[in-house]
Amino acid sequence: MDRLAKKDEWFARAEKVIPGGMYGHQSVKYLTEDFPLYFAKAKGTYLWDVDGNKYIDYVCGYGTNLFGYGNERIEQAAALQLQKIDTATGPSEVMVQLAEALTQQVSHADWAMFCKNGSDATSMAMVISRAYREKRKILVARGTYHGASPWNVPYTTGITKEDRAHVVYFEYNDIESLNAAVKSVDGDVAAIYATPFRHEVLYDQFFPSIEYAKECRRLADEQEALLVVDEVRTGLRLSRDCSWSDWGVHPDLSCWGKAIGGGYAIAAVLGSDKAREAATNIFVTGSYWLSAVPMAAAIETLRLVRETDYLEHTRRLADKLRAGIAEQAERHGFELKQTGPSVMPQMLFAGDDELVSRGRAWTSEVIKNGAYLHPWHNMFFTASHTDEDIARTLEATEAAFGTIKQKSVALNRLDILDTVQR
Amino acid sequence: MDRLAKKDEWFARAEKVIPGGMYGHQSVKYLTEDFPLYFAKAKGTYLWDVDGNKYIDYVCGYGTNLFGYGNERIEQAAALQLQKIDTATGPSEVMVQLAEALTQQVSHADWAMFCKNGSDATSMAMVISRAYREKRKILVARGTYHGASPWNVPYTTGITKEDRAHVVYFEYNDIESLNAAVKSVDGDVAAIYATPFRHEVLYDQFFPSIEYAKECRRLADEQEALLVVDEVRTGLRLSRDCSWSDWGVHPDLSCWGKAIGGGYAIAAVLGSDKAREAATNIFVTGSYWLSAVPMAAAIETLRLVRETDYLEHTRRLADKLRAGIAEQAERHGFELKQTGPSVMPQMLFAGDDELVSRGRAWTSEVIKNGAYLHPWHNMFFTASHTDEDIARTLEATEAAFGTIKQKSVALNRLDILDTVQR
Repeated sequence: MDRLAKKDEWFARAEKVIPGGMYGHQSVKYLTEDFPLYFAKAKGTYLWDVDGNKYIDYVCGYGTNLFGYGNERIEQAAALQLQKIDTATGPSEVMVQLAEALTQQVSHADWAMFCKNGSDATSMAMVISRAYREKRKILVARGTYHGASPWNVPYTTGITKEDRAHVVYFEYNDIESLNAAVKSVDGDVAAIYATPFRHEVLYDQFFPSIEYAKECRRLADEQEALLVVDEVRTGLRLSRDCSWSDWGVHPDLSCWGKAIGGGYAIAAVLGSDKAREAATNIFVTGSYWLSAVPMAAAIETLRLVRETDYLEHTRRLADKLRAGIAEQAERHGFELKQTGPSVMPQMLFAGDDELVSRGRAWTSEVIKNGAYLHPWHNMFFTASHTDEDIARTLEATEAAFGTIKQKSVALNRLDILDTVQR
Repeated sequence: MDRLAKKDEWFARAEKVIPGGMYGHQSVKYLTEDFPLYFAKAKGTYLWDVDGNKYIDYVCGYGTNLFGYGNERIEQAAALQLQKIDTATGPSEVMVQLAEALTQQVSHADWAMFCKNGSDATSMAMVISRAYREKRKILVARGTYHGASPWNVPYTTGITKEDRAHVVYFEYNDIESLNAAVKSVDGDVAAIYATPFRHEVLYDQFFPSIEYAKECRRLADEQEALLVVDEVRTGLRLSRDCSWSDWGVHPDLSCWGKAIGGGYAIAAVLGSDKAREAATNIFVTGSYWLSAVPMAAAIETLRLVRETDYLEHTRRLADKLRAGIAEQAERHGFELKQTGPSVMPQMLFAGDDELVSRGRAWTSEVIKNGAYLHPWHNMFFTASHTDEDIARTLEATEAAFGTIKQKSVALNRLDILDTVQR
């Protein structure tokens, strides 16, 4: 019996009514056939696919899951709010309470504006930055992901060059390159965009130097531009504040999404007083931006952030998984690079080919053994992961290393046979 | 005791932590002081503000409410889905079911793609259109609203001219102007955007001629461009199909939002097979785009669309309100223009000043009498409005006409006094 038989049935139906059967970052066409596609249930750390297979999840809704699927406290707050009001003709008072909670939580923030997508937040920050001193250029490190709007999507099909006419690229963590970019636009800098650390698909992750972060801040001030830190993916994962604030580097604007909503759809731009007038003068809106239920969920999420040891807990477990996998990889003779913060791990095999074949083969086996790892996208931990989850995951990864080692030996033998026969 | 005392308290708090205290289309700074801002409860047709005042709502979440706040069937479907899975590492099978339901409901549609904001849908349609034949120009009728992204937001603070470098404007419902626009770009037409009828703030609404709609279709075909009908505001309000499909004019892409989600955050692009390959080739994504709960709510909403007489019911009640208000206005000596389809009414006083002072004075009184009308934005009916609601609303409007008539007489007397004293 095919382990993913129902998946295939659903995909056959999907292909008729959805272009390519699927789209976006959750498309499995970029993964392997062993990956499930449609999920029937999610609870805590666990996912069940439509075929009834259960997985310990390390992708965690691509970051939207921080306290476990269906966290009781968050769900209770959301349910209570839903009894009252959600999307309506105007906001509820929870909008004010959430803005208060965020500005108390994030040290640079004096105000908040809400939206739905991470891309809404990064685009809103762009418009605010341009309104600030009526300058145009947005300085972005080459290859950093700031969303999927025409001005920043990493693919160019259907995109015109004018969509990014005022986006100026420089090399991440390269002070010289950043200075050259600033110089090249002759005073027309609206914003410098910053990714707390590099976390792009298919690449090893790394933190920039503190000097680089400070130089971003210094140049923004020098140019009367705004420093925008994009926390959409990193927010509340590395710190209870802005990621760079722990280094003493405070942005003027920060963009948030994913984790802040506790699984509910919400994103936000936080700003300092300096940027308040500009933010007041722009026009942005969306049909669901002021919906109350995601705001109530976010308020409760922030309460959990303040009142629990989720950060210390996820770090401890993530370090444990990293150490365990490192030991296994070495023992099996694989050079597996586990990069970035352990709570947002990227796992790539050294010298893997362009198709990440080895990584896909390994995660494919891990998936079959009941843990959902991603072959080339950074992963996430949640407060609901347990020591038992880690132990069971390490069993899955151990078995997977064994299997791919065997397969690669078999493959090498075939290569040899092939060579001999020629 | 101030009727809106708590509102003022909340607003004072909001001003500290939200730029301008509020933003977007739900900002009350564009309305009058008599309008509530924060709502504590919504059920069916009714809203309660934080001060406990109850309103019969005719703005209906700016179109997101079609079957009444907290509709039992929609909420049940959403709650059932929430028990299983919502935002997760992948979609649920309800994504496929919703795509199937939409393509069965909307005659031109062979496929669906989901997102969150109406603006996401109109922007996605733009990217698909450009991918279709690698052309660039998007033809948009001047002044029509297609969302709040930099390429289409009606305000220009923080927007660069390059954001709309390839947007070409023509006059709505003007075949000659449309043809001239097509001619002006010399074959480089990616899409013609169409608003089913004009429904912009501060203007009387009107339908275009069928000939104009047909000319949009003919020119799109002639130019190998896509015809995009923006149903975000109008969808499911005028028809159970695309609005122009009732005229035999079928788009290649249509954009949906608001009403389709039954109050839950979802938007969609629907497309014909012609545009499928282009849609497959673009990259679009969002953290919450595949969340299952809004999809389950949308599936149930479409079931209600098929199985109930909501369309006929809303038309009957909307016609009744329109006739009642028309009679009152005439009797009180006011020329009130009620334009557009009665289920999406716009109400503007003839010859009102730029600030819509008379409209604001009147709706201000209506609001105090318990019905939430908008002074310059089109309004919406829901299936939950009743004959009793209409009767009570007509009492509110009748009293409001009486009050503003008296005030205007008093005002005229003051003017006269003023003149005499001079």
